Order: sequence, then C-alpha cells, then structure tokens
Amino acid sequence: MARNLYELQGRADKRLSPFCWRTRMALWHKGLEAEFIPVQFGQKDKIAFSGQKLVPVLEDNERVIHDSWTIACYLEDAYRDRPSLFGGAAGRAGARFINGWVDRAIHPAMLRLVLSDIHDRAIDEADQPYFRASREKRFGKALEAFTDKSEHRIAAFREKLEPVRLALEDSPYLAGPAPLYADYILFGTCKFLEICSPLVLLAEDDPIYSWYERMLGLFDGFAASDGAADRQVA
Amino acid sequence: MARNLYELQGRADKRLSPFCWRTRMALWHKGLEAEFIPVQFGQKDKIAFSGQKLVPVLEDNERVIHDSWTIACYLEDAYRDRPSLFGGAAGRAGARFINGWVDRAIHPAMLRLVLSDIHDRAIDEADQPYFRASREKRFGKALEAFTDKSEHRIAAFREKLEPVRLALEDSPYLAGPAPLYADYILFGTCKFLEICSPLVLLAEDDPIYSWYERMLGLFDGFAASDGAADRQVA
Repeated sequence: MARNLYELQGRADKRLSPFCWRTRMALWHKGLEAEFIPVQFGQKDKIAFSGQKLVPVLEDNERVIHDSWTIACYLEDAYRDRPSLFGGAAGRAGARFINGWVDRAIHPAMLRLVLSDIHDRAIDEADQPYFRASREKRFGKALEAFTDKSEHRIAAFREKLEPVRLALEDSPYLAGPAPLYADYILFGTCKFLEICSPLVLLAEDDPIYSWYERMLGLFDGFAASDGAADRQVA
Repeated sequence: MARNLYELQGRADKRLSPFCWRTRMALWHKGLEAEFIPVQFGQKDKIAFSGQKLVPVLEDNERVIHDSWTIACYLEDAYRDRPSLFGGAAGRAGARFINGWVDRAIHPAMLRLVLSDIHDRAIDEADQPYFRASREKRFGKALEAFTDKSEHRIAAFREKLEPVRLALEDSPYLAGPAPLYADYILFGTCKFLEICSPLVLLAEDDPIYSWYERMLGLFDGFAASDGAADRQVA
C-alpha cells in the first residue's frame, strides 16, 4: 500500500510548483503520509501512468489522480474522518473560486514579473532548454523580453492582491479562523515566488506578508522547508 | 418594531445600487420583511441618523447598521435560526473574499464601460448634476471621456469574470449547491448592469448568463423585479 505525490523538482532538489505545494499542504492537513517523488520537466515518463503530462499526480494505493483541485476534492471525500480541507459545501465553493482566481488573475501577472528568474535560478540546468523553448513559444517572446520587473508592474501585481487583504481584515486566514485549502492555494504561489525569485513582491508591512509568515509555521515547520528531500525533518 | 432598508433610488423608482441589492437578497434569504425606503443622491439627510452618507443602511428596530458586508454579517449573527447566508465560517470567509474581489476587480472595470450610461439612463434627473460633478472629480475626466465601450475593454471585462466560470463548472451557484450570500454579491452587480446599461456584457452562451437567469427566479420572482415599489408583488 503506497501513497506517492509526484511533484516538480527544480535545482538543488527544491520543489517548485505552486500546484504541487497545494497538494503537499493538503496531505499534511489531512495527516496523510506520502512519499514526495521528484519529477523534472525532462522526466515526464515518470508520470506517464497517469495518462497526462502535468504534476501534481497523486497515487493513492490503486487510485491515480491528477490536477491539484481534483486531488483536493478527492482527499476531502476519501478521508472524511480526517480534518476537513474546506469546512463544508460553501467553504469548498469559496476555495474553488479562489483557486480559479489565483490561476487566472494572479499567476499570469506573476509570471510576467519572474519568468526569466524561474529559468535562471530555479529550474534544473538540464531543464533549461525545454523551459525556454516551451515558454517562448507560449508567450511569443524571449524570456528576457517577456519578463518585466518595472515598478508599475510590481505595483499592479500588489494591487491585484487587494481582495486578499480585505479578507484578512476579517479573519487571520483566507478560510476564516483557521487555515484550510483556500489558504494552501495562495500559499503555493508565495512559496513558488520565494524559491524562484529575488523580487520582493510582498512588502513587510503587507498583511499578506504576516499571513505568509503564519502559514510557514504550520505542520511543525514542514511548510517552511523548500521541499528538498535531504532538508525534510523526519 | 420596524425594519427599514434605505437604498439608492434611480429614475422611475428603480433601485440601482449593487450593494443595496446584496442586502435585499440577504433579507429575502433570511425571510425577513422590511420596508425598502428610497434615497436619491440629493436626499442624504434621510440617512443622516446613520452617521455616514452611504447606502445601504439597515434599521432593525433599535439597531442601525451600514455597509452591505457588515449588514450581511449582522443578519447572519442576529438571525441564526433563519437560513444561513454563508454556510459556516469557511463559507463566510469565501463570501468575504468574493465581496472584495467584486468591489476591487470587477466594479472598476465595469464603471469604465458604463459610467455615462448610469448618468444618462439610470440616475434621476435631479441627481445628474451631483453625479456628474462627483464622478468627474473622482475619475479626473468627463463622464463621456472616461467611459470606453471598445470591444477590447468588453473582452477584458469578460475575461476578468473567468474565476466565476470556473467555479460554476463545479456547482450551480458560487456558494455551491444552493445560492447564498456569495451569489447575492455578484447578483447585485448584474442587476445594476441590467438596469443601467444597454451594453450586453454577458453573452447568452456564457455560463454566468445562465447562472443569472437562475438567480432571477429566486424568491418567487422578487429577484427579477427592478425594485420599483409599484412593481413589487405583495
């Protein structure tokens, strides 16, 4: 009987993917042990059994599930006796909304700021040619031309996060009084930024910064790691 | 013992404010009767007792509450035996997020498209000079220069709503299997657009269009009215 999470591996074994971090946090929240199996861009054969090419992939004994949102729903429904990831049907719907908002409103604005950093600092050297070719094809520009760290873009990115600040005025976490999957969604993005870029996208007096610091304290400090296997506390 | 909702009144007694519609829907959801008292921009003396100048204001016997989100939380907590507006703490937090997102991401993009329509078609004639002066001061431009109905702006507005479409892939309402306050937030905006502008901002094949049609069927058709007192079913 095995539980394996296949996740994106970057340089120095750091685990990069914001989506894989969502699933890591969900597994820890549920108190479910798993092996975290590294997959580089050039190693998609490792997840061929899932019938598609994207991580995260969760193998839970006989079950194979991909897509971080689908995995979260699977974990919630398959392990109902464990702590809830959503806090009920309305909480699940709210998390679903935040999931889509982060993917469609926040990630594109973030990539614009850090795409060349991901290539230069975070991706394993062996993956760099693939990353450059695939992203330059997708965005129609050289990585360096696409990436734009100008002050007005940083300000616009911070402005996009305003609904998060408003939510944090009411409660310490996006999901309310305690962190739930809604928080893990945005946490994955912040973790990704921390690992990939030297850009300071959250000012220290930003309530989202304080929220992120609280999040890093979760799960006995596991959430503060960069996911590299040799730095994980047993 | 009286319960009064003070709300913005436009031409032909139509009730315009997206924020006031949120509160109307919340009252109906809770099954609470109220008198809907019209307030034009030039009649702020009617709500002077609330100590501020914005509608909605709810007068619930001895209590006076303003700000639509604060009112929703008040109704939820004061009338716990009535149907829940949030579906629990996580649902409340999700609704809080959607509230901030509609206010900060959707409304500014919407106003850019329809500001002059609001003035020309929806505001009572007596309010037009105030509306023009206050909005031109706020936006630093003539209403007609600020308003921009170009196709790319309409497309950008529709694109901003993408997280709603993703959420509606999972469930029929933003709050999940049944409509809750999260839905009333966006409903208020759609209702406002329907009353104020001839612009078609939702294509008929848009899942948000179908969602809005379902919402209009709520509360025995009350939600389909434009709020004018003489057109309300008793």
